[in-house]
Amino acid sequence: MRVLGIDPGSRITGYGIIEQQGSRLVHVDNGAIFTDCAADFPGRLKRIFDGLATVIAEYRPDEVAVENIFFSTNAQSALKLGQARGAAIVAAVHAGLRVSEYTALQVKQAVVGQGRAEKGQVQKMLKALLGLPETAQADASDALAVAICHINSQGLVRRTAAVSPRKSTSWRNYRP
Amino acid sequence: MRVLGIDPGSRITGYGIIEQQGSRLVHVDNGAIFTDCAADFPGRLKRIFDGLATVIAEYRPDEVAVENIFFSTNAQSALKLGQARGAAIVAAVHAGLRVSEYTALQVKQAVVGQGRAEKGQVQKMLKALLGLPETAQADASDALAVAICHINSQGLVRRTAAVSPRKSTSWRNYRP
Repeated sequence: MRVLGIDPGSRITGYGIIEQQGSRLVHVDNGAIFTDCAADFPGRLKRIFDGLATVIAEYRPDEVAVENIFFSTNAQSALKLGQARGAAIVAAVHAGLRVSEYTALQVKQAVVGQGRAEKGQVQKMLKALLGLPETAQADASDALAVAICHINSQGLVRRTAAVSPRKSTSWRNYRP
Repeated sequence: MRVLGIDPGSRITGYGIIEQQGSRLVHVDNGAIFTDCAADFPGRLKRIFDGLATVIAEYRPDEVAVENIFFSTNAQSALKLGQARGAAIVAAVHAGLRVSEYTALQVKQAVVGQGRAEKGQVQKMLKALLGLPETAQADASDALAVAICHINSQGLVRRTAAVSPRKSTSWRNYRP
């Protein structure tokens, strides 16, 4: 399974592509889409949409993961971020891809093992986990992290699914 | 010139199409795209994007206008609205259309003649101005209003453009 993680932003949108090969996580690519601050806002949203559409066309991910945001310092910046996020998510759903959302807590827990980890810790862990030659750009790092979080949670779902049938057929234990 | 006005919202996105025929404003269509509150958020953004893409394909507007929002009661609702707005704007720019933004003050001034007009006044004025058989749905009304605002402002630009050359060639006045 190949997952595209996205960290949307009106100025910089990070992306990271991770592939699950058995129990191994393989880094495929990561990068950032920069928008021109001097351009009009609709033009900047187009840049995000088109940039991600290109990434999707090139790497053909199976699923997409985005970090969920629950608060922001002020309504005006939340509105800006929301629009960038809307453009990014639409790029994925327009390509027919399912988008899953995860909280920052879930993402940090998946990568570092604890939800209160600092940004630097996450970046270091990603470098080690994926064998990156250098620390990825901040937004691309967050994108890689959410992609890993999605793969982990899918693994969990699959494990649960594998366990459940046994549970529901626990009568087998009572067979003579 | 045919203008598509959009009033984006995560629950209801209003749209209105107005055509300028000489000095006349002709109402083409208006309506609203409803999203399923029970659906996941990416799915709701897809509904907005696809709905507007269908409207654009059917009515082939020349330009698009959206009301600009400068504040919101809280960051969380601003983030939701922002995502809906991002999906809506991307539907327009993806179709190659230019998107112009106007403040609520500009929109009300364009339709009613004063920026402090109430919602009811705007709806009444729209009904009279466009000869609608009945008051349009609230979000569709706002969409029609921003479309009219865009046409008015374009008219102003054109008038200014028509005046400017005369100004710059005012030496003609001094010809013998």
